[in-house]
Amino acid sequence: MNAALVGVSGYGGMVLFQLLNNHPGVDQVNLYGHAQTENQNLGDVVSLFELGHFNQQQIFPYNEIQIMQDNDVVFFATSAGVTAQLAQPFIDADFPVIDLSGDYRLNTQALYEQWYHKQPAQQSALDTAHYGLVEFESAHNAKYVANPGCYATATLLALAPLVKNDLIDVDSIIVDAKSGTSGAGKKPSELLHFSQTNENLQVYKVNQHQHIPEVVQELQTWNPAVKAIQFNTTLLPITRGLMSTVYAKVKAGVTQAEVSEAFEQAYQDQTFVNWTDRRFPTIKEVVGTNDCKIGAIYNPDTHTVMVVSVIDNLIKGAGGQAIQNFNQMFNFDEAAGLPVNVWVP
Amino acid sequence: MNAALVGVSGYGGMVLFQLLNNHPGVDQVNLYGHAQTENQNLGDVVSLFELGHFNQQQIFPYNEIQIMQDNDVVFFATSAGVTAQLAQPFIDADFPVIDLSGDYRLNTQALYEQWYHKQPAQQSALDTAHYGLVEFESAHNAKYVANPGCYATATLLALAPLVKNDLIDVDSIIVDAKSGTSGAGKKPSELLHFSQTNENLQVYKVNQHQHIPEVVQELQTWNPAVKAIQFNTTLLPITRGLMSTVYAKVKAGVTQAEVSEAFEQAYQDQTFVNWTDRRFPTIKEVVGTNDCKIGAIYNPDTHTVMVVSVIDNLIKGAGGQAIQNFNQMFNFDEAAGLPVNVWVP
Amino acid sequence: MNAALVGVSGYGGMVLFQLLNNHPGVDQVNLYGHAQTENQNLGDVVSLFELGHFNQQQIFPYNEIQIMQDNDVVFFATSAGVTAQLAQPFIDADFPVIDLSGDYRLNTQALYEQWYHKQPAQQSALDTAHYGLVEFESAHNAKYVANPGCYATATLLALAPLVKNDLIDVDSIIVDAKSGTSGAGKKPSELLHFSQTNENLQVYKVNQHQHIPEVVQELQTWNPAVKAIQFNTTLLPITRGLMSTVYAKVKAGVTQAEVSEAFEQAYQDQTFVNWTDRRFPTIKEVVGTNDCKIGAIYNPDTHTVMVVSVIDNLIKGAGGQAIQNFNQMFNFDEAAGLPVNVWVP
Amino acid sequence: MNAALVGVSGYGGMVLFQLLNNHPGVDQVNLYGHAQTENQNLGDVVSLFELGHFNQQQIFPYNEIQIMQDNDVVFFATSAGVTAQLAQPFIDADFPVIDLSGDYRLNTQALYEQWYHKQPAQQSALDTAHYGLVEFESAHNAKYVANPGCYATATLLALAPLVKNDLIDVDSIIVDAKSGTSGAGKKPSELLHFSQTNENLQVYKVNQHQHIPEVVQELQTWNPAVKAIQFNTTLLPITRGLMSTVYAKVKAGVTQAEVSEAFEQAYQDQTFVNWTDRRFPTIKEVVGTNDCKIGAIYNPDTHTVMVVSVIDNLIKGAGGQAIQNFNQMFNFDEAAGLPVNVWVP
Repeated sequence: MNAALVGVSGYGGMVLFQLLNNHPGVDQVNLYGHAQTENQNLGDVVSLFELGHFNQQQIFPYNEIQIMQDNDVVFFATSAGVTAQLAQPFIDADFPVIDLSGDYRLNTQALYEQWYHKQPAQQSALDTAHYGLVEFESAHNAKYVANPGCYATATLLALAPLVKNDLIDVDSIIVDAKSGTSGAGKKPSELLHFSQTNENLQVYKVNQHQHIPEVVQELQTWNPAVKAIQFNTTLLPITRGLMSTVYAKVKAGVTQAEVSEAFEQAYQDQTFVNWTDRRFPTIKEVVGTNDCKIGAIYNPDTHTVMVVSVIDNLIKGAGGQAIQNFNQMFNFDEAAGLPVNVWVP
Repeated sequence: MNAALVGVSGYGGMVLFQLLNNHPGVDQVNLYGHAQTENQNLGDVVSLFELGHFNQQQIFPYNEIQIMQDNDVVFFATSAGVTAQLAQPFIDADFPVIDLSGDYRLNTQALYEQWYHKQPAQQSALDTAHYGLVEFESAHNAKYVANPGCYATATLLALAPLVKNDLIDVDSIIVDAKSGTSGAGKKPSELLHFSQTNENLQVYKVNQHQHIPEVVQELQTWNPAVKAIQFNTTLLPITRGLMSTVYAKVKAGVTQAEVSEAFEQAYQDQTFVNWTDRRFPTIKEVVGTNDCKIGAIYNPDTHTVMVVSVIDNLIKGAGGQAIQNFNQMFNFDEAAGLPVNVWVP
Repeated sequence: MNAALVGVSGYGGMVLFQLLNNHPGVDQVNLYGHAQTENQNLGDVVSLFELGHFNQQQIFPYNEIQIMQDNDVVFFATSAGVTAQLAQPFIDADFPVIDLSGDYRLNTQALYEQWYHKQPAQQSALDTAHYGLVEFESAHNAKYVANPGCYATATLLALAPLVKNDLIDVDSIIVDAKSGTSGAGKKPSELLHFSQTNENLQVYKVNQHQHIPEVVQELQTWNPAVKAIQFNTTLLPITRGLMSTVYAKVKAGVTQAEVSEAFEQAYQDQTFVNWTDRRFPTIKEVVGTNDCKIGAIYNPDTHTVMVVSVIDNLIKGAGGQAIQNFNQMFNFDEAAGLPVNVWVP
Repeated sequence: MNAALVGVSGYGGMVLFQLLNNHPGVDQVNLYGHAQTENQNLGDVVSLFELGHFNQQQIFPYNEIQIMQDNDVVFFATSAGVTAQLAQPFIDADFPVIDLSGDYRLNTQALYEQWYHKQPAQQSALDTAHYGLVEFESAHNAKYVANPGCYATATLLALAPLVKNDLIDVDSIIVDAKSGTSGAGKKPSELLHFSQTNENLQVYKVNQHQHIPEVVQELQTWNPAVKAIQFNTTLLPITRGLMSTVYAKVKAGVTQAEVSEAFEQAYQDQTFVNWTDRRFPTIKEVVGTNDCKIGAIYNPDTHTVMVVSVIDNLIKGAGGQAIQNFNQMFNFDEAAGLPVNVWVP
């Protein structure tokens, strides 16, 4: 089958392009640029691809008719606000869509406008979009998938066993999440200037990160008692990788054994989530892979469970999970096309 | 006056040496090495000083009689466990001591043994040592000062206005603290290998960091209801600087205005603590200085106040605060010898 | 076919293990540890593999008979000095060997002892080992291959078109090479301590790097007039990647066009070497791939050609080139098992 | 005396402001912004100064009459092209000027236009400006000083003993210089984006860096035989610090002893230049100080001397050398106001 990718020039698109190229079930990856009117060489658009293997790969002008004719699925790696303007015809035509932007993750237009400050997609599309947190929500019967955000993925995988098993006080959830700069995109800015980011730690989007409502909304499907979470995002002086450090008070009498059992049950059969109750994983253990690694340790002195969840923000937190959704939609093997080799060292 | 410094080869000692050299009230800084039997050149011991201005500075063999004869104060920048073995004669002689190790910070031998796993100092010395958190505990009448730890300093300054004014539920305190590698010392290890630390984030000493009891003990002097805190330490891929991110539930009805007022009152007259309720400071804003910068923002959705406190771990978190204690003990101007110029950029 | 890998615990071995696992012609990768007496789990030996996909992979005790019985080729990713002690029985048995250490690269025992300060391999083995710089020396008929060093690979690929076409004064060659820390191994040391390496640049092994004689020896096969090269190695504050910056005076009358023509001829048919005369490549353009990217620009003001050659030191500079040699030896497709996806960003 | 500083918002200006504040001979530092019409707070213009000691410091609108009335000297830390438009009235009035931009370094308007692509200063001003390489050209009688560039400073100090003593073939000079990002300014760009700079090495301004003619011009004053140099600039993934690695063929018969003697003679009486023939200094040994540290090692195999010269690009390479020129002009102690404490670690 053939796969269309709209938006290859961002980091998420570039990684997804690489993953699709390696997928055994994809014969051809066709690239489309929504802001161009003529064919372009990939090597002329993306400087990392200027020399070498993919520089001659064509990027075609965006044309929804052509995309549907020549492909069996379309991935959008466009910015938030852009997919919402492009995807409706595919949805109307029942053509498979996997969207990596946040445009179809929130349930209501009002919520989207509040957190994204952009024009939302149609409410009907929001109503029926599938939120593709693959370990908990299979995309098997989905037609258009909202691929989860990077922070949301790491955080939800850390919280799921605790919330689903009712082990914690849901009013006590604190998330101290940290991400490398690749999550913040290619556009130069003062925040991302090397002289500013290097040897520094910068808290940003205080209580305003757009992944907050996404996490809350999904937690509420597991436990309607969830009202809000304290969620902090800090920019790390690294390029790839994300750590979500989660704290919550356990309910009275909960033990480490029960915490461990909940994680064991949740993830023992999952290929891409590993957990341990002996230590906390480091970011370096997952970068380059589709893995989420989780440590969960209960502190009896404070009745608090601390969970550390690490992912590669551009793979498990973006393109890799998109491939997982693709595999679920089209009945490929769950590991098809997904990288398992961590960057060494 | 003359100042003795024992232990110049570690990062803390090196920085303290530089600060003492610049202090207008110090005529002479005399260096002593407790593990050497002959004079050595500083440039032969510390490779950063091998060429240049200080390479010929002498390090004398450790001799307590000589130290007391030739100096008016002694600073210990020795490792935990070492000061406890050296300082007693000075204490017995009522000779002024400022200790940068943790050996005199905890109140009881039992607590020290539990967290440091080393031979404690004498209980009588622990009983009378002054805990030198300068903004709250003046060393004016102290004879020997336990200089606070780096994590403890940033965390206590973040919590003091909230705990002292009874604004938070003290059972809900969560500290997610992060430090650069200079806090972990010069000794090579797997944890600190560049290939391991770089592009990584590593949680370490889970629920076992020796600054935990130090923070709890001091909080208890402010509010005896404090029992324990959830305290996490994460190693950053940077060299200098420390951020302590603190979360706590506010008591019912507490507002941002009350939070701001508490910080304003606490720090408006302090030269080296700045705070704001408009944003969170970055590590880069304090590195190179003796400053602590603090942001405190209340989130009405979660009834949680989030405080970000940043310091230079080797200055405000070690040598700089030691100089502040020294200034209090000897009635120097509070800013004497303390750096105010941030590293640019 | 089955491949044996001796020495998986170093960075080179870990990457080679990943590459062999992905090779379409390798059915099974068998790991052997020359310093162990019982089976071990890979996850217990290599912390990066502790959780996840490969933690249960067995490492067998080293046994040359067993290795030959169960495999069709053996790769040594052992340290210099170790392979020389292990490989002779395989050579005697005409069993295919690919060695990533430097033990079989130099032609004489005397030269090896001078630069490596270790016990050399047998002279007879040095006489017949194949130096596997794949673009210029095919391993098609080789039985045991000395895989080139990382610095040597980048430097020789930069110099080959110039030396082979007699375009430069061979007495004027200056190589200013820079490498990330992964080339210096896992063992903690003062040089590699994060606090020392980070925000720093350190020249090391001045005029004594063991890749110097390797480069000179190979250059001499192309032009016997080569006597010595000025070769400098500098440690970069990055983990992966290597840049070799080469300068040489061109012979009288040589133009940019002739320089370009030489590179064009040398590399136009090479899958894994790209060059350009318009700009210089950055390290980031090759990390994660088996590519060598080269820029060559002539400066008429100084009659000097400057060549910048970048590789991933652990792939093209180690395991990737080993796979290329393997492909040549066993007639696999030249690109089989070799990564083409650059790390983004 | 009072000092005026025009242009405090760039990194160079910020550091110079800090140095002037610490200078024992400066009573008052007055700041002026050439692009503003009303007083501004420093804390509102420079985010690093937003909280703390200097946030209330005033920046006055630029007014040359006022500057001359209220000050005894003016420093320009403005961009190249800007000083040329501002400084002429001061020069005409014989008012002391120290310029940190490149506008008065080159001798002719034509040369300036060729390398800077901007409008040059008046030729008469270029004719009489003093090039302030302090170790070799005293500013004692100068009225307006062109403060040398960072690359030029490190490179000239590395070459001076060799060129002045006629020890090298001046046609063979190769300079492989590397700098941290603070030398490239505050303005965000693709080159300086953290995701691009981090874990990378980028050659830039190939054969076009504006410090090239500055170095050549000064070398020619020492030896008119100098015609051109091969000079390469590479951007390091660090913030502060610069290393200039210089190679040259020695003249027939020159020995290490003669090389060492030349450096010894040149720098034995210099406070801020240290050299050694035993090893090469690292960048970390000078950052935070006004020092230049130099290693010079002769390689008899290649008849090449290799010199490594390291400086802090914003101190010795900018503001620190400006203070040295200031000290020479006004007969202050040569070390007045200059930092000697290296950043630890």
